[in-house]
Amino acid sequence: MAQAASLAEYLSARRAQVEAALTRFLPASPACPPGLLAAMRYSLEAGGKRLRPVLALAAAEAVAEPASAERAIDLATPAACAIELIHTYSLIHDDLPAMDDDSMRRGRPTNHVVYGEGIAILAGDGLLTEAFALLSSEPRDPQLAPRKIRALHTIASAAGARGMVGGQAIDLLAVGAASTFTRESLRDMHARKTGALIRAAAVSGSIMAGASETTIDAVAAYGDHLGIAFQIVDDILDVEGDASKLGKTAGKDARAGKPTYPSIYGLEASRQLATERYDSALAALDTAGLHNSRLADIAAWVIQRRS
Amino acid sequence: MAQAASLAEYLSARRAQVEAALTRFLPASPACPPGLLAAMRYSLEAGGKRLRPVLALAAAEAVAEPASAERAIDLATPAACAIELIHTYSLIHDDLPAMDDDSMRRGRPTNHVVYGEGIAILAGDGLLTEAFALLSSEPRDPQLAPRKIRALHTIASAAGARGMVGGQAIDLLAVGAASTFTRESLRDMHARKTGALIRAAAVSGSIMAGASETTIDAVAAYGDHLGIAFQIVDDILDVEGDASKLGKTAGKDARAGKPTYPSIYGLEASRQLATERYDSALAALDTAGLHNSRLADIAAWVIQRRS
Repeated sequence: MAQAASLAEYLSARRAQVEAALTRFLPASPACPPGLLAAMRYSLEAGGKRLRPVLALAAAEAVAEPASAERAIDLATPAACAIELIHTYSLIHDDLPAMDDDSMRRGRPTNHVVYGEGIAILAGDGLLTEAFALLSSEPRDPQLAPRKIRALHTIASAAGARGMVGGQAIDLLAVGAASTFTRESLRDMHARKTGALIRAAAVSGSIMAGASETTIDAVAAYGDHLGIAFQIVDDILDVEGDASKLGKTAGKDARAGKPTYPSIYGLEASRQLATERYDSALAALDTAGLHNSRLADIAAWVIQRRS
Repeated sequence: MAQAASLAEYLSARRAQVEAALTRFLPASPACPPGLLAAMRYSLEAGGKRLRPVLALAAAEAVAEPASAERAIDLATPAACAIELIHTYSLIHDDLPAMDDDSMRRGRPTNHVVYGEGIAILAGDGLLTEAFALLSSEPRDPQLAPRKIRALHTIASAAGARGMVGGQAIDLLAVGAASTFTRESLRDMHARKTGALIRAAAVSGSIMAGASETTIDAVAAYGDHLGIAFQIVDDILDVEGDASKLGKTAGKDARAGKPTYPSIYGLEASRQLATERYDSALAALDTAGLHNSRLADIAAWVIQRRS
């Protein structure tokens, strides 16, 4: 229990750091038109787990020497925030009537329900673009240009047509096609849709903190496994989760005829697969001596979560 | 006429360079899911003037020594292509039913008419994100990281909530509000919606070519004036243009009750304003000794165009 409480405190402290930085980094009115800014903030401030930005900070901390951990976290904070901007944009666009057509998210009406579809599309476009404006401006030290370019490329590749957007397209085109979906296509879709950005969060945090190539590779392998584990658990929660805790409609994927881990493997085998991914994530950390870091605790939290 | 023919040849050659590079830089299938890639290519290959990427290359050429002009153009080519990816995404999203609801663009059905709204939204998201993936990867020389970061920041700021996306939001919220729009709000909206990316094209081209700060400032001032001139001419063509040449519906802005230069200033004064912006653009070039470059010819083309 002490360990669990301590992780909860850790997550809570990191979330607060991320949220303060998001407020600082977001463009202000009137440089950003107020009608657009309100819609961007509505979704950004809706809370959520902040898994991706916390993961970026935890990765930066894990790869740094203890004495320079705070500095490493500062260096990774813009990347952490940029990833949360990108994650938030993806939720806004994903909820649109032409996509998943969701009216509730995190216990509140979705962006387009409140602001209309046009502004919701633009709020997403704005969050996505500001993510790259932020990544290219902060931290300002010119000597960090090579790290920034590399972290930015990692994030853009993960978020784009070869990553998350590609996964959303596969998902959209797969509605009603669950029965013809192979295990390989399911894994590919999920690796893109959810896994890519989770991996990029961990990797970009380690890049900004100046990790060695070997360490970055270990963090990338950890991120790969964690991303898949996260999505398997998401699919399981969609079947057996409590809508009030999830803050969104449960059972929706199954009703939409979307391929999911439980629909293809069954619930029990899905749980087993999530556990295997957790074990592999820890083994990857072990190769770089990172198994005692918060990255390990976060992996445990990801597979044990109930919402 | 010889001068005009020569400019036409110049534009045509640069367009061909841009189009070849776009094909080279676009993600391939299956890394990008084929159903998404087809929608991205549909709009990207629809042609158009390619004003923005040509401007980026012309700016790079203009600021370089004659002997290194080809090298400067090569350095600016990824930025030129990224800007065209961003311009193309903005057209796809702008045409959506929740936005301008246009069914024709460049003489062909719009993206969502062909691929459906969901894929059209994702094709736009994919083009926007791949623009930043491209900017952060090419050119590969690590020594160029500071220039790349600066060009990327210029482009992201111009395209985001403080620039183009912000302008689209103002435009969307202004439908039916033409009568209450002031001249200042019109200029602000257009400076964001069209001007910002045109300016960023010229500026990023000069940054990638290694221009001095004074020269970059002159190119930025040129781009400011050219962007406004372009939009004034666009508004005029919407009133008196030929739909078959425009490839889109003429008179649409006026019918939607959108504020435009002709609706606020009248046609004659709008023409005068465009000419003044042209003169100011040339004067800006003059301050950096760039008045004999292709940038001057491009400005003349922009205000004389009929489509």
